[in-house]
Amino acid sequence: SGKLAPDYVLRPLQLSDYRAGVLEVLKDLTTVGDISEERFTEQFEYMRARQGEYFVIIIEKIATGNVVGVGSLLVERKFIHECGLVGHIEDIAVAKSEQGKKLGIKIIGALDFIGKKIGCYKIILDCSPHNEQFYVKCGYSNAGFEMTKRF
Amino acid sequence: SGKLAPDYVLRPLQLSDYRAGVLEVLKDLTTVGDISEERFTEQFEYMRARQGEYFVIIIEKIATGNVVGVGSLLVERKFIHECGLVGHIEDIAVAKSEQGKKLGIKIIGALDFIGKKIGCYKIILDCSPHNEQFYVKCGYSNAGFEMTKRF
Ligand SMILES: CC(=O)N[C@@H]1[C@@H](O)[C@H](O)[C@@H](COP(=O)(O)O)O[C@@H]1O
Ligand SMILES: CC(=O)N[C@@H]1[C@@H](O)[C@H](O)[C@@H](COP(=O)(O)O)O[C@@H]1O
Repeated sequence: SGKLAPDYVLRPLQLSDYRAGVLEVLKDLTTVGDISEERFTEQFEYMRARQGEYFVIIIEKIATGNVVGVGSLLVERKFIHECGLVGHIEDIAVAKSEQGKKLGIKIIGALDFIGKKIGCYKIILDCSPHNEQFYVKCGYSNAGFEMTKRF
Repeated sequence: SGKLAPDYVLRPLQLSDYRAGVLEVLKDLTTVGDISEERFTEQFEYMRARQGEYFVIIIEKIATGNVVGVGSLLVERKFIHECGLVGHIEDIAVAKSEQGKKLGIKIIGALDFIGKKIGCYKIILDCSPHNEQFYVKCGYSNAGFEMTKRF
């Protein structure tokens, strides 16, 4: 899927990304709500403490220093498949003004790379029918339905 | 959804369930492969160390002491929804000889209860179209597609 354009950098989430607008990018995906810098730091530390379980990556636009894309991989340990690992791709978002530049596919490619490298036998994600074709372009196939119960 | 029949007990997974056949039940769902008791114990301890993240429950048939049903809940921490929690229901299986006795719905109900109690804003799961109606009976709604990439 080629290289990232030179005016962007893809890297792990860091604490300073709170100020660089990572939560604003997630607002394009769904409800984020009010999260103080302290609460963000606490959640970041929770994830950092779980090495090999949570991977959050972002794309930064070098010219502005702003976060313009984000995505997560959660690694689940199972009994099936000889105590296999499954990667869950979650919370993929690209800022509206930066869409159409293939940043989303770069985020998925990076998360796929991590998941494969740590030994996941598969990676899964849930999406609306509207986004199916994007994930097909990323090499994913439709495997069934997502079912939800909300509280 | 009523009470469990008196000849069954629903409880958290324990180490002795290796010998009580929990892996045989999972073989109804998919590939399990060879897992030694030592490897099982290691995976069990990994999950136990992650309190509040992994919940595995089983149904035991009292007359035989065998595991006849199993299911898991993995709790994910997110930034979205004010650092919200999402429960992932995974690896639901009921022994073939015990199907049609509503054990599956009891397992889902117990995992829903745990997920709600610890504060998940939603619980999600993936299934084949063939199982959609079962999860509708459990109170779930179709929310989109599962996409997969296998390695
Ligand atoms: C591949 C991807 O990014 N999927 C996301 C999922 O990760 C996220 O958790 C959910 C939030 O929706 P909600 O606000 O309705 O829970 O939306 C999408 O399904
Ligand atoms: C609700 C439920 O139990 N869903 C399971 C999922 O948890 C499991 O991981 C997968 C295994 O399939 P695989 O062997 O093809 O990975 O099957 C089903 O989708």
